[in-house]
Amino acid sequence: MTKVALALDDARELATRCLVANGCDKANAGAIADSMVRAEADICESHGLFRVPGYVAALSSGKVNGKADPKIGPVAPGVLRMDGDGGFSPLALERGEEPLAAAAKEQGIAALAITDTYHVSALWQEVEALAKHNLAALAVHTSKAVVAPAGGNKPFFGTDPMAFAWPRRDGPPMAFDQATSVRAKGEVLIAARDGHEMALGIGIGPDGNPTTDPNLILKGALLPFGGYKGAAIGLMIELLSASLIGEWCAFEQSEGDNNDGGPTRGGELLVAFDPTKFGNGEDWLDHSEALFERLLSQDGTRLPGDRRLANRKRTPTEEISIPKSLYDNIVELT
Amino acid sequence: MTKVALALDDARELATRCLVANGCDKANAGAIADSMVRAEADICESHGLFRVPGYVAALSSGKVNGKADPKIGPVAPGVLRMDGDGGFSPLALERGEEPLAAAAKEQGIAALAITDTYHVSALWQEVEALAKHNLAALAVHTSKAVVAPAGGNKPFFGTDPMAFAWPRRDGPPMAFDQATSVRAKGEVLIAARDGHEMALGIGIGPDGNPTTDPNLILKGALLPFGGYKGAAIGLMIELLSASLIGEWCAFEQSEGDNNDGGPTRGGELLVAFDPTKFGNGEDWLDHSEALFERLLSQDGTRLPGDRRLANRKRTPTEEISIPKSLYDNIVELT
Repeated sequence: MTKVALALDDARELATRCLVANGCDKANAGAIADSMVRAEADICESHGLFRVPGYVAALSSGKVNGKADPKIGPVAPGVLRMDGDGGFSPLALERGEEPLAAAAKEQGIAALAITDTYHVSALWQEVEALAKHNLAALAVHTSKAVVAPAGGNKPFFGTDPMAFAWPRRDGPPMAFDQATSVRAKGEVLIAARDGHEMALGIGIGPDGNPTTDPNLILKGALLPFGGYKGAAIGLMIELLSASLIGEWCAFEQSEGDNNDGGPTRGGELLVAFDPTKFGNGEDWLDHSEALFERLLSQDGTRLPGDRRLANRKRTPTEEISIPKSLYDNIVELT
Repeated sequence: MTKVALALDDARELATRCLVANGCDKANAGAIADSMVRAEADICESHGLFRVPGYVAALSSGKVNGKADPKIGPVAPGVLRMDGDGGFSPLALERGEEPLAAAAKEQGIAALAITDTYHVSALWQEVEALAKHNLAALAVHTSKAVVAPAGGNKPFFGTDPMAFAWPRRDGPPMAFDQATSVRAKGEVLIAARDGHEMALGIGIGPDGNPTTDPNLILKGALLPFGGYKGAAIGLMIELLSASLIGEWCAFEQSEGDNNDGGPTRGGELLVAFDPTKFGNGEDWLDHSEALFERLLSQDGTRLPGDRRLANRKRTPTEEISIPKSLYDNIVELT
C-alpha cells in the first residue's frame, strides 16, 4: 500500500483544516484533530485519521453540531455533568478533564457524565490524562449495536469499550482500553477495507453462523470476548454509560442514527479515584510499582498498553504515515 | 452422594453454633452463617456451608479474630473506610451497607474501602443489597494468587471477582458476580473433592501445560477469561481492591498467609451510584427496563444472574441439601 509520511504538526493542521472546511469551528476541529493525531503517533490507526471521512459525513448530513460549546457543571457533590451541545466528543472531553480531576481530589471519588455528544471513543487518552493528575481513572462508553449478546445472534451491544489508567512513578501511566467485543469495530472496518480475513470467533454473519469475512461480520454481529462474562461486562457498560446518565443505549443509537457513516450520538461515564483519599496509610505508588514489578518478573508477561507506549516512543521523528488513498481523500474533502 | 436436607433456619443455626464453638462471637457467627445459607438457597454451593471447615481452620490457627468489631468512618466526602479488625468479612459488609447507601445518595457516587478482613467473596450478595436501595453497585476484591497473567505460567492474580448490580422495577435486582478466571476457584475445589475432570482451557498444571485435572490446576494456575482482556481486568481489580486502599494484592496474600486452609487477609472496594443524582431527566428505571426487555427479545438470551434467582425461587420449602460428609464434618467441628 502506498503511504504518505506527515509530520505530526502537519497531520494535525491537515485534519483541522479539513474539519473547519466542513463546518467545525477551530476549537472543535483542533480537539478532534489532536485526538486523531495522538492515536496515529500511538500507531492505533483505527482511532486515527481513518476517522476523518466519518466526521465529515456527520457534519455534512447536519447530524452533528460542528460549533458545539460543551458546558460542564455539578449535579451532585461527586457528580459532574457535561452537556455536549450535540457536538463531537473531543472538545467536551478536553473541557471535562480539569474539573473532574479537581472533583476527585476533593471528594476522593467523582464521576463525569458526558451527554449529547457524537463519540470518538479513543478512551485511553482520557483515562491517561486523568492518571497524569495522579488519579486512577475508569471510562466506559457505548456506541451503535454491533455485538451479539451471549446466547443471541443479532447485534445488541455496542463494542462497549472500558478503559482504565493508573499512574506510574516514572513515565506515562499504565492504561488499557479494550472493547467488550473480541475485536474493536475499527479493526473489522480496516480488515474489510484492506481485504484481509479475520480469525474465527470474532464474529458471525447475518445468518448467525461464524465467519472469517469482515464484510459479513459487518452485516452480522461481533462476538463478546470471553463469552457470557464479556457479555455481562457489556451490559454493565450499557447501564453505566446510558441508563445511569440518560443517554442512548447501543440499540437506541442504531435506531436513532441517520446512517451517514459518522459516529452516533451517545454518552460516556468517567470515574476518577484519588488514592491519597482512601485512608491508605502506606505509599500507594510504591505499592503499585511493586505489583507491576512482580508481574513483569514472570517471563512472557507485559503490562497492558505497553505496546502503545513503545509505539509512541518509536515516533521520535515526529512523523506518521497514512495510506495515500486516505490522504488523497482528506485533501479532497478539504 | 448421600445428602442431608436442612431447613434454612436449622442450617443457619448449625453453622452459627459451629462458628461460636470455634471462637466467633454471635455477631460474627451470625453474619457468616447468614451469608453461607443464602448462598446455599441460591444453590451456589461453592459459597455455602462448604466453607465452614475453612473458617474453623482460620479460627483455630489464631489467624482471624472471631470477635472482630469492624468500624466504619468517612476518610473523604465520597469515601468510607471500614477497619475490619482482623475478622471475617461478613459482619464488616453488613455494617457497611447502610452507610455506603446513605453516602451514595448524598454524593451521587461513593466508595467503601474494606480493610483488614478475611474474605468470603460472595460479592453478589453485597451489590444486590445496595441495589435494593435503588443504587447501582460495583464490587471488586482479590484473594490468594491462583491465576496466571497473560503470557505467564505461574499464579499471580487472585480469581479477582467483579460483581455488579442494577435495580429492577419488579423483583430482585439484576446482579452478576464473576471471577476473572475462566472458572471460580471454588468450582475447582469442588471438582477436586468430587473427582471430576474440568474442561481444557480452565487451568494449567505446575509444569505450565494445559490440564483437565483439578488437582493439578490447584498446584499450577487458573487461566484468565478471554486471555489478555480478562487479565487486564484482573490487574485493574488488584489495583482498586489493594493498591488504592492499602491492602494486600494477591501475591502478598499468598506470601503472608499461614496456609491454615481458611480465607486470606484482603480488602474490597465497593462503589455505589445513585441514578437520580446524575442529572438524568428521564425515568432511569423505565430506560433500563426497556434495555432488559429488548435484550431478552432475542431467542436464547437471558440476564446475568437469572439462574441464581430461579434457584432461589425453587427453594420454596425453605430447605437446602448438603453432602452428608460435609454435614458430619460440621457437626464434628461443633
